[in-house]
This record gives sequence, C-alpha cells and structure tokens, in this order.
Amino acid sequence: MKAVGIVVEYNPFHNGHFYHVTQSKKITNADVVVAVMSGPFLQRGEPALVSKWHRTKMALRSGVDLVVELPYVFSTANAPLFAEGAIYLLGALQCDAFSFGSEDGILEPFLNTADLIETHFEEYNGLIKKFVSTGISYPQSLFYAYEQLKQKNGRVYLDLSKPNNILGYHYIVAAKKFNLPIEPVTIQRIQANYHDSIRETSTIASATGIRKEIFQKGHLEAIQPYVPDASYQELAEWRRQYSRFVDWEAFWPLLRYAIMRYRPENLKAFADVSEGIEYALIKHAKHSQTFSEFMSSIKSKRYTWTRLQRMLTHIFTGITKEELHQFKTPTYIRLLGMTERGQAYLSERKKSLELPMISRVGQVKDPMLEIDIRASDIYALGVEFFSDKKIDGDYKLPPIRF
Amino acid sequence: MKAVGIVVEYNPFHNGHFYHVTQSKKITNADVVVAVMSGPFLQRGEPALVSKWHRTKMALRSGVDLVVELPYVFSTANAPLFAEGAIYLLGALQCDAFSFGSEDGILEPFLNTADLIETHFEEYNGLIKKFVSTGISYPQSLFYAYEQLKQKNGRVYLDLSKPNNILGYHYIVAAKKFNLPIEPVTIQRIQANYHDSIRETSTIASATGIRKEIFQKGHLEAIQPYVPDASYQELAEWRRQYSRFVDWEAFWPLLRYAIMRYRPENLKAFADVSEGIEYALIKHAKHSQTFSEFMSSIKSKRYTWTRLQRMLTHIFTGITKEELHQFKTPTYIRLLGMTERGQAYLSERKKSLELPMISRVGQVKDPMLEIDIRASDIYALGVEFFSDKKIDGDYKLPPIRF
Repeated sequence: MKAVGIVVEYNPFHNGHFYHVTQSKKITNADVVVAVMSGPFLQRGEPALVSKWHRTKMALRSGVDLVVELPYVFSTANAPLFAEGAIYLLGALQCDAFSFGSEDGILEPFLNTADLIETHFEEYNGLIKKFVSTGISYPQSLFYAYEQLKQKNGRVYLDLSKPNNILGYHYIVAAKKFNLPIEPVTIQRIQANYHDSIRETSTIASATGIRKEIFQKGHLEAIQPYVPDASYQELAEWRRQYSRFVDWEAFWPLLRYAIMRYRPENLKAFADVSEGIEYALIKHAKHSQTFSEFMSSIKSKRYTWTRLQRMLTHIFTGITKEELHQFKTPTYIRLLGMTERGQAYLSERKKSLELPMISRVGQVKDPMLEIDIRASDIYALGVEFFSDKKIDGDYKLPPIRF
Repeated sequence: MKAVGIVVEYNPFHNGHFYHVTQSKKITNADVVVAVMSGPFLQRGEPALVSKWHRTKMALRSGVDLVVELPYVFSTANAPLFAEGAIYLLGALQCDAFSFGSEDGILEPFLNTADLIETHFEEYNGLIKKFVSTGISYPQSLFYAYEQLKQKNGRVYLDLSKPNNILGYHYIVAAKKFNLPIEPVTIQRIQANYHDSIRETSTIASATGIRKEIFQKGHLEAIQPYVPDASYQELAEWRRQYSRFVDWEAFWPLLRYAIMRYRPENLKAFADVSEGIEYALIKHAKHSQTFSEFMSSIKSKRYTWTRLQRMLTHIFTGITKEELHQFKTPTYIRLLGMTERGQAYLSERKKSLELPMISRVGQVKDPMLEIDIRASDIYALGVEFFSDKKIDGDYKLPPIRF
C-alpha cells in the first residue's frame, strides 16, 4: 500500500483541509492518508478549540486514514523544530510522499530555496548577524538576509513572507536533513489566506476565520458552509458537552494564577522567558481580568504575538525549558485513530517500524510521552474548570476506530 | 506606656479571644494590647476564613490596640519557628509582657519544662533518637522522650499533649533564646478545648468549632452567641461581598491545577514534600473533584493532617523551601492597624524600634515582605476566583485606624 503523509492541526477541520486531503491522495496515487496532528496545544501558542479526540474523529470521517499525535515538544515549537518532529514521524511511518499546502502550488521554489540556503549557509548566517547587530529583530533579519541571498541568480525562490510557505520550506529542509526516502508534493491552497476571515462568496475559509466567527457570533450556524458535516457534528457535540470552545480566555483564571505563583527569576525556567519580560508577565497578570487585557499590556515590538503565546503555553502546562530542550526527534508513534484502511496499512508495516507504536498510554515510561500526558491532563482540567464536566480519562482511551 | 503582647490568628475573633485580651491587659496592668497576627495563611496549614484586614478590624473593635502581621515564613511554620517569629516581633515592639492562653493558667510548669529540657538537652535528644530509631514517628518520639525526662524530680511539668500548651512552651523558649526583657504571663482558657465544637450551654466556643458551624450550617446566625458583635459584623460584611468564606474547598480548583502542573521531582522544591508523597499528590489531584476527597486519598499514618496542609499551603502560594528557609527572625514590623491608644504607643517608641516599621508596602524591597505580598496576592486571587469580586489592592491599603 502506498501512503501520503500530511501535517495538520485541524482546529477545526474545514473544507480547505478536505480539499487538501482529497487532492494529496489523488496526486500521489496513495491508498492511505496519514496525518500527524498536534495534540491540545498548537504551533501559534494556543490551546485547541476542542480535544484531540474530537479533532481525530473529524479527520477520520473526512478522508484521513491514520491520525498520530505530534508530541507537545514539537507541536508548540518554532517552525524548524515543528517541521522536523512532524516529518520525522511521517518518515517513521514509512510514508512514500508528503504533501503540504502552499500559496502557488509549485514545488520548484521550495527546492530552490532549500538548496540556496544550504549551499550559502555561512553567508546567510553572516547576513543575519549583520542585521541583528543593527537592532533589527531576529525574524526580520532572517527575512532581509534571505532577500539579499535571493539576488544570487535567476532561479525562482519562495516568498517567505507567507506563513504557509515558511512551514513548507522547513518540511523540505527536514526531509533532506533526515535523508528520508519521501517525495515532497505541494498543493495550492484555494482562496483563503492564512489570516483571512470568512468571505461570504466562498465555502472556503481559514481556520483562523472560522474560530473568529465561532467566538464572535457565539453559535455554530455561521460556520456550517465552511466545514464538512463530520466536523460540524463534532463541534456541536463538544459544545453540548462542555458549553463553550477553548481559547485563552477560557483558561485565563488558571493561567493568571500560574503566573502569579512565581518569583520573576523562576519564570525564566520557561522557554523564551527572558530579557525582563518575566517582570511584565507578573505585574500585568495581577491587574488583568481577561486574557485580552493581559496581552495588550504585555505586547511590545520586541515580542511577536506567537512568541508570547508560546511562552504562556509552557507556563500554563508547567513544562520547563529544560524538559523541552532535551529532545531532538520523536521517540514513539502515538496512535490517535484509524479507519479500516489505516489499520490495514499499519498491519502491513507494523513489523518494520523503527519507533514503538503506542496505542494506550498506561504504564509507558517515556519522558516525551509524559510531557504529552501532562499537557493533555492540564487541558482536560482547564475544560473541567469552566464546564464542570470531566473529560474522561483522555489518556486511557484506546485509538478511535472508524 | 506599658504594653502587653499576644500572638493570635483570630480565625475568627470570638468571645474566648475577647476574654484573653481583657484579662491580659488587666493582669499585666498594661495600657495597650499589641497583637502579632498571622496573615492569610495559618499555622495549621489553612487559608484564613476572611482577609487579614477584616480580622484586624475585629481585633481593633474588641480591645486590641495594635495589630502587626506575623510574616508568612513564620505564620505557616511548625510551633518552634512560629513562636520564635512571633515573640521576636513582640520583643521588637518593646512589649513589657506577653500573655498566652493555657489549659491551667499556671506559669510554673512552663518555666519548669523549659528549664528541664534546656538543662538536659543532650539526654533529651538522645532519647528522641532512640525512639525514632525504633520506627516511632518524630512527634510521638518527642512526646515519649519528654515523658521519660519528666521522671527526673518532683517538680510540676507541662502536659505537652495539649496543642495550646505546646505553643506556650515554645513562646517561653523563644523569649529565653532571644534574651528578651519581657515577662511571660499565662491565662487559663475557659471551657472550650482546642478541638471542641460549639456547646449550647456556653457562649465560649473554639475557633475550630465556630468555623465548622459556619461551613455546616451555611449561615452566620448560629455563631452569633459566640463572637463579639464587631466580629459578627465583619464576617457578615465579608459574606455580603464575597458570597462565601474561605477554606481549602474554595481554593481546590486552583490548588489542584498547581499540583498537576508539576513533575513529581519538582514538587520536592516545597517544604516537607519528600519520601514519595509527591507521587501521591499528583496522582490523587488528578482524580479528586474536591479537597476532602483529595485529603482522604493522601492521608496516611506517616503524615499528620497539619503537615499535609502546610505542604499544600506552600504549593498553593508557590513559595519554595529555599525561599522559606533563608530566614531566622523577622526583618520588619508590618503594621495592619491601630487604635488611637496604639498610635500613641507607637509615637512614644518609634525612634527606638530596632526593626523598620512598614505601613504601606509600595516600593519596599525586602525578600521576606515579598513573600507576604505574594501570599496575599494569591489569597486575593483565590477569592476573586470564586466570588468574581476583586479584593482591592490588599497590599496598597494603609493601616486601619480605629
């Protein structure tokens, strides 16, 4: 059987995702679609709208055959590490191809850019340092260095100002780094841009737009045209059970308490907390009744929104820099769900997999997995906190079969 | 002016406390009563029913002239350290006498016991070690060693099985240790024992009994006969504002979250967490919906209720062993409130006080005070959490004048 791998968050699963799943399978002529999906905490430093189990069901009911969890260590990391964790898992699952969305749907610029930076690595780093030394922020320096490098010759390079292109670029780099026999494929994203809200003339909207709509309107009807029926049903089911969707506002009382328990110097145990932001975090946590009030107090040019939110994710879960930084690549494959076809694929490959496959967590002693368990427990506690409903033994559930 | 000092928690202020204040003043012929009062967290490892400001008002309206805060470091400590912190402050406030309650109201056994243990210190420690080595718990070994020492000669010694006698004994020892020119006085406690509940035939009930009554009955009327009017009014005022009184159940969702954020080994940063209890804390926090469920899961012969609750106090506030154990004696006098007479006393002594007097915290940089501020902030956050009402700038308030 032939497998195509994809890297997803499904927060929530929408029509654009459905198109990506269908096209990826078609173009690569694959028998199964394998998705590496982030658990409860996502790459932009946010908790997921609904549990990973609900998001797994959305995927399995919409064309994905196998869902495995991207460990917390990678799902909350910057683009390079996020990509390495995800691509490594797709390699470990012996995918023949991996497919990612891009602005233009053309692979060549990704390969060219990866090649350009690889072959001019020292020059590139020198340029970055030069820009940083003038006081320009690190992400901006990266961008300028790249713009300068691009002048090299007449080939077509990527537009790295688009978030989706950045991830795609790092997927390609990661596959090269691990020397994986896996063919990259890219599919053009249709219509909605990453930061777009819902447009009334299309049935495609970005996940960001859909989440905004859910929180602003407070009901699900408005997003029905933009998501597959399976996704709509899972969202509705979550709302029936837990009364609201998860965002930082819902977790704010707990996050606020977590911050206030610390002395400034001890907050530095968490990734990215440095340069005095620890004082601002504590001071403004004291005085902010809502998360948005808090964010507008601590936001400055120095820190991107994403960087701040990732910091807060780690403080919320209690996972320290020291814990995070001990890992390079995933140490297990955590199965969240599968269709019959996905199961058949696993049976075929099971014996030759190089990472242990984990279906139930029980007594497993793996430090990376312990972090995932803790993150899921804390997410579940947060949900219980606002809904007064228990998420039953999240980590004792067997994989979902569909 | 002559001052008598007392050591109190006033949780809440009741008729027995009123008797103690009045008698102490009378017997010592004092002009003012100076109380060293615990802040938001108490010696048995519990949060106070109501804020320290409400408790200060109860005291000032019932005969106390000056209320200063016993810093968190001492207010949550075991009996010897608690007593040292409190007596040191009474010494720093130049009290002429200090007065404590006891079962029999006779000072001699306190002096005899202090003398006995001082003069037989090595023998006493040897006995303790001997008992501990047979597997007997430390508190029990202390008791057996003392019982054996008491056989020495025909003098009258204390019954150290009574909690109030233990505190009194440590007050005497502390005054000796610091060589304070302060005269000890003891007053017989009337009727209610430490662990007694309310008795219908008396207007004296223990604070424990009064709290039990408040939480069981859910209204204040039942305790009206047992507390001065001022105390009743402050309690009623608190309830109007914050809808319920503080106990661990009220703080449980936050405490539970705080515990679950930790890896077992990191919980050992908190005082008394050792010998594997860290695993039990995390495991049972996950599964316990209430504090009482949690406590009955973790309670074992090895740990007294008080020791467990003190552990939990520190985890709740985030104050680590390392932070706690850097101090030997108070470094400031934190004024919570005063009557006119109290103010006159302070004016008289102000210039000769050996510790800085702190009326407003503002920009003070004292590591012990920072702990007090943090503990008060966390207590306030906990109250805001269940009541949705802010305790306004607890630490910005000036002392209460009455």
